[in-house]
Amino acid sequence: MTEFILSENEFNKENIPWNGNRFLTGNGYFGIRGTLEEYTKENMCAINMAGIYDRAGDAWRESVNAPNPLYTYVIINGRKYALPHNKPLSHMQTLDFRNGVHSRRTEWLAEGGIITVKCERFASMSRRHLIAMKYTVSADFECDVEIVTGIDGDVWDINGPHFVKMQTSYKNNVCYVTGVTGEKSIAVNVREAVKPDFNTDETVINEERCICRHFSLKTKPNVEYSIEKIAEITSSEDDFEANDNIERLVYSELKAEHITEWERIWNVSEITIDGDDEAMYAINYSIYHLNSIAPRGQKGKSIPARGLSGQVYKGAVFWDTEMFMIDYYIHTEPEVAKTLLKYRIETIEGARQKAKEYGLKGAYYAWESQEGGYEGCSDYNVTDVFTGRPMRTHFRDKQYHVSAAVVYGLMKYIRGTGDYSILNEGAIETVIECAQFYRSLLLRYADKPYYEIHDVVGPDEYHERVNNNAYTNRMAKFVFDIAIELIEKFEKEYTEDAERIDKKYDLAKTRTMLRDSSENIFIQQPHEDGIIEQFNGYFDLEDTTVETVRSRLLNPKEYWGGAYGVAAGTQVIKQADIAAMLSMFRNDYSVEIMKKNFSYYEHRTEHGSSLSACMYALLACYTGDADTAYSLFMKSAKADLTKGGKEWAGLVYIGGTHPASEGGAWIVAVNGFAGIEETDGKLICRPLLPEKWKGMSFKLMYRNKLYAVDIKKGKAAINEI
Amino acid sequence: MTEFILSENEFNKENIPWNGNRFLTGNGYFGIRGTLEEYTKENMCAINMAGIYDRAGDAWRESVNAPNPLYTYVIINGRKYALPHNKPLSHMQTLDFRNGVHSRRTEWLAEGGIITVKCERFASMSRRHLIAMKYTVSADFECDVEIVTGIDGDVWDINGPHFVKMQTSYKNNVCYVTGVTGEKSIAVNVREAVKPDFNTDETVINEERCICRHFSLKTKPNVEYSIEKIAEITSSEDDFEANDNIERLVYSELKAEHITEWERIWNVSEITIDGDDEAMYAINYSIYHLNSIAPRGQKGKSIPARGLSGQVYKGAVFWDTEMFMIDYYIHTEPEVAKTLLKYRIETIEGARQKAKEYGLKGAYYAWESQEGGYEGCSDYNVTDVFTGRPMRTHFRDKQYHVSAAVVYGLMKYIRGTGDYSILNEGAIETVIECAQFYRSLLLRYADKPYYEIHDVVGPDEYHERVNNNAYTNRMAKFVFDIAIELIEKFEKEYTEDAERIDKKYDLAKTRTMLRDSSENIFIQQPHEDGIIEQFNGYFDLEDTTVETVRSRLLNPKEYWGGAYGVAAGTQVIKQADIAAMLSMFRNDYSVEIMKKNFSYYEHRTEHGSSLSACMYALLACYTGDADTAYSLFMKSAKADLTKGGKEWAGLVYIGGTHPASEGGAWIVAVNGFAGIEETDGKLICRPLLPEKWKGMSFKLMYRNKLYAVDIKKGKAAINEI
Repeated sequence: MTEFILSENEFNKENIPWNGNRFLTGNGYFGIRGTLEEYTKENMCAINMAGIYDRAGDAWRESVNAPNPLYTYVIINGRKYALPHNKPLSHMQTLDFRNGVHSRRTEWLAEGGIITVKCERFASMSRRHLIAMKYTVSADFECDVEIVTGIDGDVWDINGPHFVKMQTSYKNNVCYVTGVTGEKSIAVNVREAVKPDFNTDETVINEERCICRHFSLKTKPNVEYSIEKIAEITSSEDDFEANDNIERLVYSELKAEHITEWERIWNVSEITIDGDDEAMYAINYSIYHLNSIAPRGQKGKSIPARGLSGQVYKGAVFWDTEMFMIDYYIHTEPEVAKTLLKYRIETIEGARQKAKEYGLKGAYYAWESQEGGYEGCSDYNVTDVFTGRPMRTHFRDKQYHVSAAVVYGLMKYIRGTGDYSILNEGAIETVIECAQFYRSLLLRYADKPYYEIHDVVGPDEYHERVNNNAYTNRMAKFVFDIAIELIEKFEKEYTEDAERIDKKYDLAKTRTMLRDSSENIFIQQPHEDGIIEQFNGYFDLEDTTVETVRSRLLNPKEYWGGAYGVAAGTQVIKQADIAAMLSMFRNDYSVEIMKKNFSYYEHRTEHGSSLSACMYALLACYTGDADTAYSLFMKSAKADLTKGGKEWAGLVYIGGTHPASEGGAWIVAVNGFAGIEETDGKLICRPLLPEKWKGMSFKLMYRNKLYAVDIKKGKAAINEI
Repeated sequence: MTEFILSENEFNKENIPWNGNRFLTGNGYFGIRGTLEEYTKENMCAINMAGIYDRAGDAWRESVNAPNPLYTYVIINGRKYALPHNKPLSHMQTLDFRNGVHSRRTEWLAEGGIITVKCERFASMSRRHLIAMKYTVSADFECDVEIVTGIDGDVWDINGPHFVKMQTSYKNNVCYVTGVTGEKSIAVNVREAVKPDFNTDETVINEERCICRHFSLKTKPNVEYSIEKIAEITSSEDDFEANDNIERLVYSELKAEHITEWERIWNVSEITIDGDDEAMYAINYSIYHLNSIAPRGQKGKSIPARGLSGQVYKGAVFWDTEMFMIDYYIHTEPEVAKTLLKYRIETIEGARQKAKEYGLKGAYYAWESQEGGYEGCSDYNVTDVFTGRPMRTHFRDKQYHVSAAVVYGLMKYIRGTGDYSILNEGAIETVIECAQFYRSLLLRYADKPYYEIHDVVGPDEYHERVNNNAYTNRMAKFVFDIAIELIEKFEKEYTEDAERIDKKYDLAKTRTMLRDSSENIFIQQPHEDGIIEQFNGYFDLEDTTVETVRSRLLNPKEYWGGAYGVAAGTQVIKQADIAAMLSMFRNDYSVEIMKKNFSYYEHRTEHGSSLSACMYALLACYTGDADTAYSLFMKSAKADLTKGGKEWAGLVYIGGTHPASEGGAWIVAVNGFAGIEETDGKLICRPLLPEKWKGMSFKLMYRNKLYAVDIKKGKAAINEI
């Protein structure tokens, strides 16, 4: 079994934010940023809780970071040694992403000799409330050592503070911190038990937002002294119970159990690539992230756009989930995919409210969906770098394509699992109401025969308020068509329930409406040169290059889009838009058209979103161009491995992990390079491997069965396991 | 006869731009800014030509300033005395606006004593190519005087230079300068003859862009020495001939003739107010401006928004003309009103092109109309003060209400003159094609019964891209209704021509289209509290005060509108919008509704346009509130008499005269305070005079007859003269 190790072998202060992301560990219940144990909020330290949100004052609602039970540092002969303040002699940070274990090793030159701190920790994959950590100190000389360890409740927040109340206490060898949020009084409880492997006095110091134990000892040279800590995080929102007796748990046992669980996961999800270790490493690193943030066995949760790497994008769920991540889960762990969809189904009321707010019908899902479908997106979502003022953006009100993404995700799930029963668990309502929503957007000029959709923001967010965005219109048609198909299916499969649905929606009338909408909606067609216009008037915009547009920036942090951004008056786009449509509806277009549009649009794309490269890569595969696809695929798979991702939109920090990019890379690997398609309920494999790939093998869940896919240059085999 | 004198009795350098406007003289063929004779382009000196435009490089097209034949200064004992460089002992600048004569008197303390320069000049109202000037020098001591006078071709331009070629010459005592524009090779010719009243040598110095005569003399103390100059300006665009022999013309005779012409004009247009000299002064000053810029006897011209005061707003014609100025001409000099309308009728091809450009039908008139209806408005019409970048504005593409203003102006003309013959001179096509234009804007939601107009900029330009602007929709309906009415009239009156029109437009089909449009267009109705929403969603905007919005400015020159301006997210508006609609369609609304809306919107109006106050004043009159109307009326009448008008939109200079405000003041005086209405082809007078007005009298042309209106508190008489 190949090792999967990510490591940094020296200390770079400026990498702290990036390392927080790429060394992330998590178990779907929380994510632990890859920060060091002695770090505090200044170093963007966070244990980000899935699905718990709070608003502080008038600021944006965002996900909540738990009090941090990893907090630990060392004092040698009365002097504290901690990064980033004390320059180390050596430093190494490591993520074993096969086993989901984070570790660090740091040496400092002290008066008297060298001291070494090691720490290993993991977010338990088998018991999702637990974090386990082993912290070891040694010195090559005799010295007085004090290990300080506890729970730091003074957490990092972007729009905090969220804990308006905080209690710290100590009882029977366990430290407790409970923070209570201001908006909804949600309690986040953290407790920890610590076992030193040496004789020591324990002093507990209880401060306002921090509780710490101090262990003192005199060390012998070159002897390691360790503490093991088991910490538990729960919240008043939990829908399941945590009932571990943490004082009795043993680090090594927990670790073994944790690794077994990861082995189980890798057993299905690992992708082997023969001939390209770099690609194999990157795609499995992507898969690692997707696994670390999957809401296994949790209800009412989905996956935020930045995973569990922090509060960026408000910890909210975007179309990213249904468009780019869900494919991976459908084909490795369908229950997770269903959980994601159930999150949408169960938050339809929020979508109804949002549609109503804009005078529209049906279900208009939140652009930045928080618990219960609450729309976390503000009307002012970017800060102007020149004036410091919030800018009126249209992500919230005009990015209509989000509801279609939900239906698209659902359809992928149904096709991949054959599980129509979800329709009778609320999905049929979701589909119908998404269709109603698009219907209510349709406009017709007094003397024109077709329907249009106006005043839209498409996937390319740099052009706001456009008419007939090709992608949006095509997705609306998709929703109308799928609604027709699924209503028919539902009426056949669930005769009795169909009556209830008929009463609610008048299915005959709905069908007429759907047919009329699907038949008459305007779909952008290729122009004479084969290029499809991204929206009405796009071709009239200044035709220039990404580099030219970039050269016009007056401030590197300024927003490219909006009414006056450098890209707004040009054909330069943020991300795949036409390219996404072509990939998704490849059967509607000839390879020739796909090629021409790939070439036209890719040159004009900034790839300012991590969702862009994978879509273009997939399209390149569909045109038979594996080489072009390869570099885009690698960009996507390495989104979190590569430094220098886009970290600012205006003055708003947008760094974090990129699970959609990672999910997108998986799609390219499986549907693109391996060429997996389904036809008539069967998997087909039409591989198109990049030049240096000699072979590729992986497993896939499809309609309740697990298959092994094995590709060796020229030959492909799919065998049920 | 009351004198009408405007004067400034000291020299203030900072008033130079403002004085250039308020001391303007003109005759409709050109406007002469109220600058002093020694001024050059640095002091915004300009003789602005009506209807001649040029584009230099990529800059905005704008009207052209002629070479300046007023250029004159004095040298005493070898030293030049000129404002603003040499501080005067005394200075007075005067505009006799009854007689259209500009004059100045300046004293300087020189070594040896006091020297005095006087100058009187006028733009001949009787011979519209001519400028006459008398320049006088005296000193209270003996000295060497040199008078330098000539034609300065180095003119002030905002987006120049426009003369790519310039020739200067001298022949038979006449100096010549001809400038040729770059874009269309239009020649602007200036020549001048000068007669000194003293014996002198004349030296002519001919520079690249300037030709000057130098007259030298030795003066006796306290004796005045004068030169008389007659200058002629013509252009290769003239549609009539200038055939004066300027060498033989005599200043005093020309002046007498000029004053006689002004007397003829004042005989019809003067308004007398008993009890309020200030108001009488202001309204007649307004009338002076309207007369100075009227294109009398000229074809193919209309009146720019800033009159003939310079190149601001590109010297272009706006809706201002048909909405605010034309009323005055209809009722004092209907031929001028017809000239204005013929300009629109004859430029329909430009309007057709513009409609086509946006995929619309019929006639979409230019927002900033230049010669031939050319659209002078740029997509980027404001400069961002923070970035220095041009801002994408929507004056050009979305201010749909401009075509309706043309029809509205036409309808006022027809009602006021009874002259339907204009219909058969192209007006019926204009009306039908404006209606076709609005028809092509109508949108209907798939499941809604009415038509909407989306993505509009209404009169309140601070809110761009709104849906169902009340004013715009109501004006569209007006156009549909008027088209029905005028087609019917046309068919009756011009049976033969009606066949031609029917062939062109299929009148039966057009009628059906017009009825459907008029009946089904969505018209904003008063809400429960009686307030009409300015556009969909206006009431959801932040409800705050003009002062609060102003306090948020980071830069006094920043633009309030656009996507992110301080007013954009609030209910604060630039100018009358609902108020304009209510004034124009007063019969559709109860006084109660008008009162409520006046009160609601006036408090939220910045009056950032000079078109605003008069509309509110008129509405206040219609609600019976003369006192409130009075202060708004005075604001409007004194637009050019008051310092501190808005001079910047972003980084774009927008100063100049405000003929629409002046025309608006006239409407308030006549239709508001005097309460002139027409019913069944008759004039009615229902006066509502402001508190201190004891009486009011004026003359009015109505359907080919001149009437004297005489109002004394409580009683009104209208008598045909």
